[in-house]
Amino acid sequence: MSRSVYTARMPIVRHDKTIVDCDVHQAYRSLSDIYPYLSRHWIEYTRDSGFSKLPYSAYPKVVNGGERLDARPPDGGPAGSDLALMRRQLLDQYGIECAILTGNFQNASLLPNADFAAAYCRAVNDWTIDCWLERDGRLRGSLTLPLQDIDASVKEVRRIGEDPRIVQVLLSVGSNVPYGNRQFDPLWRACEELGLRVALHTGGTGVMYPPTAVGWPSYYIEWHTNLSQVFQAQLVSLVCEGTFEKFGRLGVALLEGGFTWLPHVMWRLDKNWRGLRREVPWLKRPPSEYIRDHVRLTTQPIEEPARPESLLDLIHAVDAEGMLMYASDYPHWDFDAPVAVFPTGNGELKRRIASTNALDFYGL
Amino acid sequence: MSRSVYTARMPIVRHDKTIVDCDVHQAYRSLSDIYPYLSRHWIEYTRDSGFSKLPYSAYPKVVNGGERLDARPPDGGPAGSDLALMRRQLLDQYGIECAILTGNFQNASLLPNADFAAAYCRAVNDWTIDCWLERDGRLRGSLTLPLQDIDASVKEVRRIGEDPRIVQVLLSVGSNVPYGNRQFDPLWRACEELGLRVALHTGGTGVMYPPTAVGWPSYYIEWHTNLSQVFQAQLVSLVCEGTFEKFGRLGVALLEGGFTWLPHVMWRLDKNWRGLRREVPWLKRPPSEYIRDHVRLTTQPIEEPARPESLLDLIHAVDAEGMLMYASDYPHWDFDAPVAVFPTGNGELKRRIASTNALDFYGL
Repeated sequence: MSRSVYTARMPIVRHDKTIVDCDVHQAYRSLSDIYPYLSRHWIEYTRDSGFSKLPYSAYPKVVNGGERLDARPPDGGPAGSDLALMRRQLLDQYGIECAILTGNFQNASLLPNADFAAAYCRAVNDWTIDCWLERDGRLRGSLTLPLQDIDASVKEVRRIGEDPRIVQVLLSVGSNVPYGNRQFDPLWRACEELGLRVALHTGGTGVMYPPTAVGWPSYYIEWHTNLSQVFQAQLVSLVCEGTFEKFGRLGVALLEGGFTWLPHVMWRLDKNWRGLRREVPWLKRPPSEYIRDHVRLTTQPIEEPARPESLLDLIHAVDAEGMLMYASDYPHWDFDAPVAVFPTGNGELKRRIASTNALDFYGL
Repeated sequence: MSRSVYTARMPIVRHDKTIVDCDVHQAYRSLSDIYPYLSRHWIEYTRDSGFSKLPYSAYPKVVNGGERLDARPPDGGPAGSDLALMRRQLLDQYGIECAILTGNFQNASLLPNADFAAAYCRAVNDWTIDCWLERDGRLRGSLTLPLQDIDASVKEVRRIGEDPRIVQVLLSVGSNVPYGNRQFDPLWRACEELGLRVALHTGGTGVMYPPTAVGWPSYYIEWHTNLSQVFQAQLVSLVCEGTFEKFGRLGVALLEGGFTWLPHVMWRLDKNWRGLRREVPWLKRPPSEYIRDHVRLTTQPIEEPARPESLLDLIHAVDAEGMLMYASDYPHWDFDAPVAVFPTGNGELKRRIASTNALDFYGL
């Protein structure tokens, strides 16, 4: 199926209190919601194979699958599957002018069958456009890709990446090869050409491979806390492989990985670059500069120090004022309402995090 | 071989400028140095099997194997294998009152043959006592253990852990199971009983298993930068499994992992504990308190922010003044001389890092 006609996107209303929410999870009520976008072959495949859901983390330790119970539609279906409820609980309640839909489909990249994964991703992407982006002008979309097959992923990006309401591709932060590896270059090239950002979101870890470099921890609290290490490893790879030299207009958003590890990664990498830069001669600048220019991080789940001002000090210590973007993670259990983020922040920083950093990064 | 008579340890000279160096690598000149401590069977085994060195990292990217060339004895042998040179270049040159020897043997835990590993560790430990600790009263030692076999490790701890000059066991930070896993409890129990600290040191990563949770990065600079994630994962495991509740007098030193990730781990773990503590009901206090009470981190390779005062702000933000201990990493390429560490630090903090934190932690 090719899509060549797109609805023009609605402009985002900009004012002093504009809020852009960079991580909102839409869901389908049941797999049959995407049947209209699957061929008969793949529909039968899902039935014959008993496929009901994507591979998911081996740490099923949060009650209700991590969903806010109050976000489940009263007439059934998982949290995030009802636009009217999302409007009421999120968009209208907090005056959110723009929400970037991030789905929950990135583990499609872990499906053993690459052709099914490609068909599934196409279906989910078309369903997102038709059933979400078409229905509310405040919404923007992320593309799900079948990373088992880079060619197929590039093809999918080219198929619908020109839709002006699609702002990024969204991949699991977990992978078996770090994303700086050259095998991903064709995908970054396509994203750069189409002006799409690359989002790495929690997912893919603790499913088929251990979620840490030292194996399987025992508890969900560990899995959740250790997630940030995976973001760090991907960032180190993207920087050191020269991805941002090869693709000078590429932008990467790290979703749900926290950000207070930035001082460590930026300082240690800069120091190591000074000592070891002959190993990566394509890097023309200190690594921290690539990170500051090309990478954005969302706030949820925001770290909460004992003294709130410590967070501001840390942001200023690495000049990260332009790098952070608000995210609620609606409708998940660890949802951050806008008021929860930087209650003590100064006005200008708060405005950047609430909207302008995201407006600039995504060109909204 | 059992050792029941120990030379009393020399007291550490304490004054305002005392320096304790918590990471100094002694080496043997060649394997035959430890033959006196190996049985004929194992000597023949090393000859028959062609064993020459321990498994080592797949990232052999630093010239001279990471050694300071000037630290190689003029008459041959690797850096760190000559006590006279170590005295001249380190102990005497910087007025170091106490150096904790950390060897370079922790990858013995990766040897496929557990019995050979146990014999090798015994030999290295005896050699360390005879050829180093006996020869300079400023030196303290770390035990190398064959972690393939916890029982054998406990046995080795009990064999010579009472030597008052042995201050800790030293393990690779890399492992296939996180160290909080209950399989390690007998070892922590033995360490606690004998008053030994547990040091986790760079090693074991990027040898047999990928050094990150997303596989193998391409370059040494990445491996080196990503190391800190492994320390984070081990720390999260030790805290969440309740190791410090089970062993209230256990102390863990993290060597070479950096420390500016502490705010991230402490804040995120505390927040997650508030939300998820029913999963780990044995934790009686916020995770950051266990970390602050039970964990110490060495300074080398110290992170170097653009603005040196950022480092002090960060230390104060997590009340880590009592957690940091100076280390030089002599004789490796990224050696930090005492003057390189906290040149702008205030007097009291500098004194704690230079000596008092280590004197207290190790009971020197």
